[in-house]
Amino acid sequence: MSGNTFGKLFTVTTFGESHGAALGCIIDGCPPGLELSAADMQADLDRRKPGTSRHTTQRREADEVRILSGVFEGKTTGTPIGLMIENTDQRSKDYSKISEQFRPAHADYTYMHKYGVRDYRGGGRSSARETAMRVAAGAVARKFLQERLGIRIRGYLSELGPVRAEKLDWDQVHQNPFFCPDADKVPEMEAYMDALRKEGDSIGARINVVAEGVPPGLGEPVFDRLDADLAHALMSINAVKGVEIGAGFGCITQKGTEHRDEMTPEGFLSNHAGGVLGGISSGQPLVASIALKPTSSLRLPGRGIDVHGNPVEVITTGRHDPCVGIRATPIAEAMMAIVLMDHYLRHRGQNGDVSVATPVIGQL
Amino acid sequence: MSGNTFGKLFTVTTFGESHGAALGCIIDGCPPGLELSAADMQADLDRRKPGTSRHTTQRREADEVRILSGVFEGKTTGTPIGLMIENTDQRSKDYSKISEQFRPAHADYTYMHKYGVRDYRGGGRSSARETAMRVAAGAVARKFLQERLGIRIRGYLSELGPVRAEKLDWDQVHQNPFFCPDADKVPEMEAYMDALRKEGDSIGARINVVAEGVPPGLGEPVFDRLDADLAHALMSINAVKGVEIGAGFGCITQKGTEHRDEMTPEGFLSNHAGGVLGGISSGQPLVASIALKPTSSLRLPGRGIDVHGNPVEVITTGRHDPCVGIRATPIAEAMMAIVLMDHYLRHRGQNGDVSVATPVIGQL
Amino acid sequence: MSGNTFGKLFTVTTFGESHGAALGCIIDGCPPGLELSAADMQADLDRRKPGTSRHTTQRREADEVRILSGVFEGKTTGTPIGLMIENTDQRSKDYSKISEQFRPAHADYTYMHKYGVRDYRGGGRSSARETAMRVAAGAVARKFLQERLGIRIRGYLSELGPVRAEKLDWDQVHQNPFFCPDADKVPEMEAYMDALRKEGDSIGARINVVAEGVPPGLGEPVFDRLDADLAHALMSINAVKGVEIGAGFGCITQKGTEHRDEMTPEGFLSNHAGGVLGGISSGQPLVASIALKPTSSLRLPGRGIDVHGNPVEVITTGRHDPCVGIRATPIAEAMMAIVLMDHYLRHRGQNGDVSVATPVIGQL
Amino acid sequence: MSGNTFGKLFTVTTFGESHGAALGCIIDGCPPGLELSAADMQADLDRRKPGTSRHTTQRREADEVRILSGVFEGKTTGTPIGLMIENTDQRSKDYSKISEQFRPAHADYTYMHKYGVRDYRGGGRSSARETAMRVAAGAVARKFLQERLGIRIRGYLSELGPVRAEKLDWDQVHQNPFFCPDADKVPEMEAYMDALRKEGDSIGARINVVAEGVPPGLGEPVFDRLDADLAHALMSINAVKGVEIGAGFGCITQKGTEHRDEMTPEGFLSNHAGGVLGGISSGQPLVASIALKPTSSLRLPGRGIDVHGNPVEVITTGRHDPCVGIRATPIAEAMMAIVLMDHYLRHRGQNGDVSVATPVIGQL
Repeated sequence: MSGNTFGKLFTVTTFGESHGAALGCIIDGCPPGLELSAADMQADLDRRKPGTSRHTTQRREADEVRILSGVFEGKTTGTPIGLMIENTDQRSKDYSKISEQFRPAHADYTYMHKYGVRDYRGGGRSSARETAMRVAAGAVARKFLQERLGIRIRGYLSELGPVRAEKLDWDQVHQNPFFCPDADKVPEMEAYMDALRKEGDSIGARINVVAEGVPPGLGEPVFDRLDADLAHALMSINAVKGVEIGAGFGCITQKGTEHRDEMTPEGFLSNHAGGVLGGISSGQPLVASIALKPTSSLRLPGRGIDVHGNPVEVITTGRHDPCVGIRATPIAEAMMAIVLMDHYLRHRGQNGDVSVATPVIGQL
Repeated sequence: MSGNTFGKLFTVTTFGESHGAALGCIIDGCPPGLELSAADMQADLDRRKPGTSRHTTQRREADEVRILSGVFEGKTTGTPIGLMIENTDQRSKDYSKISEQFRPAHADYTYMHKYGVRDYRGGGRSSARETAMRVAAGAVARKFLQERLGIRIRGYLSELGPVRAEKLDWDQVHQNPFFCPDADKVPEMEAYMDALRKEGDSIGARINVVAEGVPPGLGEPVFDRLDADLAHALMSINAVKGVEIGAGFGCITQKGTEHRDEMTPEGFLSNHAGGVLGGISSGQPLVASIALKPTSSLRLPGRGIDVHGNPVEVITTGRHDPCVGIRATPIAEAMMAIVLMDHYLRHRGQNGDVSVATPVIGQL
Repeated sequence: MSGNTFGKLFTVTTFGESHGAALGCIIDGCPPGLELSAADMQADLDRRKPGTSRHTTQRREADEVRILSGVFEGKTTGTPIGLMIENTDQRSKDYSKISEQFRPAHADYTYMHKYGVRDYRGGGRSSARETAMRVAAGAVARKFLQERLGIRIRGYLSELGPVRAEKLDWDQVHQNPFFCPDADKVPEMEAYMDALRKEGDSIGARINVVAEGVPPGLGEPVFDRLDADLAHALMSINAVKGVEIGAGFGCITQKGTEHRDEMTPEGFLSNHAGGVLGGISSGQPLVASIALKPTSSLRLPGRGIDVHGNPVEVITTGRHDPCVGIRATPIAEAMMAIVLMDHYLRHRGQNGDVSVATPVIGQL
Repeated sequence: MSGNTFGKLFTVTTFGESHGAALGCIIDGCPPGLELSAADMQADLDRRKPGTSRHTTQRREADEVRILSGVFEGKTTGTPIGLMIENTDQRSKDYSKISEQFRPAHADYTYMHKYGVRDYRGGGRSSARETAMRVAAGAVARKFLQERLGIRIRGYLSELGPVRAEKLDWDQVHQNPFFCPDADKVPEMEAYMDALRKEGDSIGARINVVAEGVPPGLGEPVFDRLDADLAHALMSINAVKGVEIGAGFGCITQKGTEHRDEMTPEGFLSNHAGGVLGGISSGQPLVASIALKPTSSLRLPGRGIDVHGNPVEVITTGRHDPCVGIRATPIAEAMMAIVLMDHYLRHRGQNGDVSVATPVIGQL
């Protein structure tokens, strides 16, 4: 199967370049009977949208999504859902000068090696602009999971470079431009970003995503474990360099007696597993964390080469996010939603429906 | 597609339980004309095999692999390669007492929720014994990659609980039972494991895997990026809780000027990317790191429940690895080999063959 | 995988309903560097387009295709190609009266059972209007196959109800509205269709499709044989009820000595196999034939039921083709092109490139 | 995905050559809780087995299937089911002389072009011996469909060369070596086959397969229609050259008023559709028919070439079926069972369970 499709039963196939005519996707396998309108997706798209604060790229895209098929009289019909967002604020001339350059840490070099040609306008297909369609598709999955199974998926930025959130207050997450759950750290983040912007540099970040209400039983060992598919989905987001489930890398120094989540008739006593045992959801919250690298597009000169193999000094103008992590929370949520949706359908195919209410532990 | 198949063009489908009759797999899509014998797989299987030191489970399995099809006159024919390893040292009676118990941090509970039944003998399908077939299949991929493309895949254990390797001396890796590349740390590891075994506890570990000689151009954005498929593959290994590519979580606090791997006509000046840009291999070494949780099977009592929802005190007897990470190096190497093989074939399908010699940077 | 994607490496995913906003598709896996413009697809779309003679539906659709991505500076980039055709001549009011009826031989009844809802406007997703995107995608495959491999794919109508073409004159095929290769039969076909239209009835047809210049070696036994995938592709076209390869059903009464295509150093002496042996192309022309049922939408009353289970007399107004076979030639060609393209890429993935010139028989 | 896997949720992956060590398959995605033993498969295997009458090959194979995994305490566990049949009666020396010859109408020539090597012993992978695993896997599907959904799948030989069955008496099918449902025609078939054998020639055949009790709603338009997947499955059987659904090629000369199956509250009035409308099952019997070509392996000399391109006169000794159609009925049944099983699971994944009792028409 092609690399631009994600999922086995709930499949999302996307197209579109940063400066092309449009972005689009086809969602296939969506259960029929789900109420769906563009507004359901727009809310998530607006959370990802560029240009909403001074800390993100100043490109202005309405990111208005249009449903082209698969919905009739306000409900999904079970047939493919075609979605499209027209690009409106391309400024391709910004990129003409880099058409012959390979910028350090960009996909220019590798796309050229792979395909022999590349659409150099704004990164072409490798642009994070592509993630808009992930968010749109994720919104459909999220709506189904919420309405039918009571699953709630939420994320937040837990680290912005050296600044770490120390509290998790979900109500704070949408009160600031960083998706930061710790109000006390927001001023620090703002100051950090302002200094960084002046400096012309960029920075990495960490995003955490949590799904609550996941029924036990989702995941397809041995290769398509829930955590493995989730790692696939999250690592496929631009700039992601690491994925953790539950205790993640912390488990290296944990002893078995510490790591194992003991069980009582009232429930699990901890969640180091992050909601997955043996690749299958346990009914506990599904917890993942990702690391995003700093943006590579910088106005500070860096050493690169051109297509002829000559050294060049690269300065990237254009409009860019100094921290791609800032807008990544809705994208990570969307990918988790798509994974859960796909696994719910796969599970139902083989095993019949899950019990909607999370079973009391031990009550099979 | 089913959860027990990995890959799109070079596909590996496995079966088998810890205490069943046999483990097996079918490799489909292997290029014809590769010289192949059981011995080619046996070397890697022996590296993974239990019972080779006092630090691993004392179960004795010859793990002798048999080629049932797909090889004729010593060469692959392009048709499916059937492989089988018969189980010989099952002691299923060890497990009868846990048939009604859910052990903490085991897959017992989730398999039961998913399927409504479970083969409780030795963990059934969720046992790490399943990874033997990954190693066998990985050996086929590795041989092709080495012979045809000059790709070399090697791994090592970099952390065993609190003990970290500080040197990377590849020659050391096979001189000790831990796959540790730092000879000076081996005595410390031995002492740590001896104490742990006495204590009855277990510990986590970190494994690093590196592929050198990977041609640029492998990877299928936007969803099947090389790093995303690799994350999928590595996270699908039992006990893995985290995956990093290149700088991994370290990139959170890196600035863009530090993280970006600058390029000169002579090559890249660093490898924070871990050999992947935009989801496509760059020609630099592909570098991944994984965290493995401590074994859950402990003789130290833990709180669990039984199938009726009653609290039970669980003590796991049977034979287990106190650190699953110790035997995980060949498994991680195998999964990386399978991913690279699959992506090589996928790339060749769409784009034609790669240049076998890694192109000098900039020389397209 | 979802049911709206065809292919493994060259994948075509479509969306769109008869009376929805638009039809679209995503072609993923297309090799880079192919010159491509909308005009390349328009020629085939125009051949399929309704309303070009009095013998087809009078719905007027420009069927203008727009390339939304995947093409840069006139060439494919290897990234997904997004295509869209806006619907312009919907007259949905024609259908309101059948919203509660199940018409005999239509998909109304089965879509309702499957999904519990249906878009009843013009057949919704089950309309043959969906095939426009197959033709667009097929044109891309056809162009690649022609330019890079010299493969030529052509079809014709060989039977229109009781009227059979007796000569195969390729030059005639595009000289008449039926794609009939026998000029002498065209007046008979016209008279037959005129009478049929007056009568209010419809009729079946047979289409033959041939690919010349197919290199030997394409096809993936044992399940994805070239003929099996072709049967899948052709049977997936609306109204198709039978598929034959080569001698087809004629082989039932053939003896082995008659059926076997003997070989000499100069070539095969016959082509009863239709270009496929053991599921793999032989280098001879690939020959398939399909049967299309008569249109079900008739103004002659038929017995149906309504959604409440009551008997109804169904009369279908709206605009329909009295013989769907008449416009099916370009669709069958498109599906054959997509199958060959996909198999060419799959073959190249596993085995490396084919020899472009069909090898002289026996010269391996 | 690889060509040796069939299905999306209920997947069957096979391996094995005619004269290799063993045949095997992995069934993945089988629902848990199905009672299953080797005996359940053996009955169907015995029906396909060679050497049971003088009209089939005299090769003696016990075809004893062994379950290697996926079944615990007599029930499927939901994990992969590994199956194996050891080859016992290979006489590979029969084939040494044809190692350098391409026999007319065999896969020798095309396998060699595809892979550059071939296992020439008994046709290697292209041998119909491979179908044993289809029958074994089909038996699992068939058992589930019968027990859980009340679906009954049966086939028969309707034409053996010029001899046609004129009656359909299901009780007769297993009373004769031909699977012929018309007792009156059996002597004619025996005489025909005896003469043919003396002559040294072979003959084609037609097999019909019917599934009763199929719930409405199965099938995944637009590409994975139930009939399209069935055509794929049936055409993938060795020697099949044509597939018909319902009226098949007969629909070419049918008028719409004749072909359309009218509906009343009591049910459909005919079944020209063969149980599929718009690619989705209608609840009527699913009816398919296939044409099988005459065996190519003949002792009557035929013109072929050798690997050097020289003309050779080919005489095939070894042991062969003079009419492959005779043993094909269980194979066609098996493939229909696998298709229905896979579609049942796919449907359940997206839409939830079907109503087990076929709904009274119109009663949604």
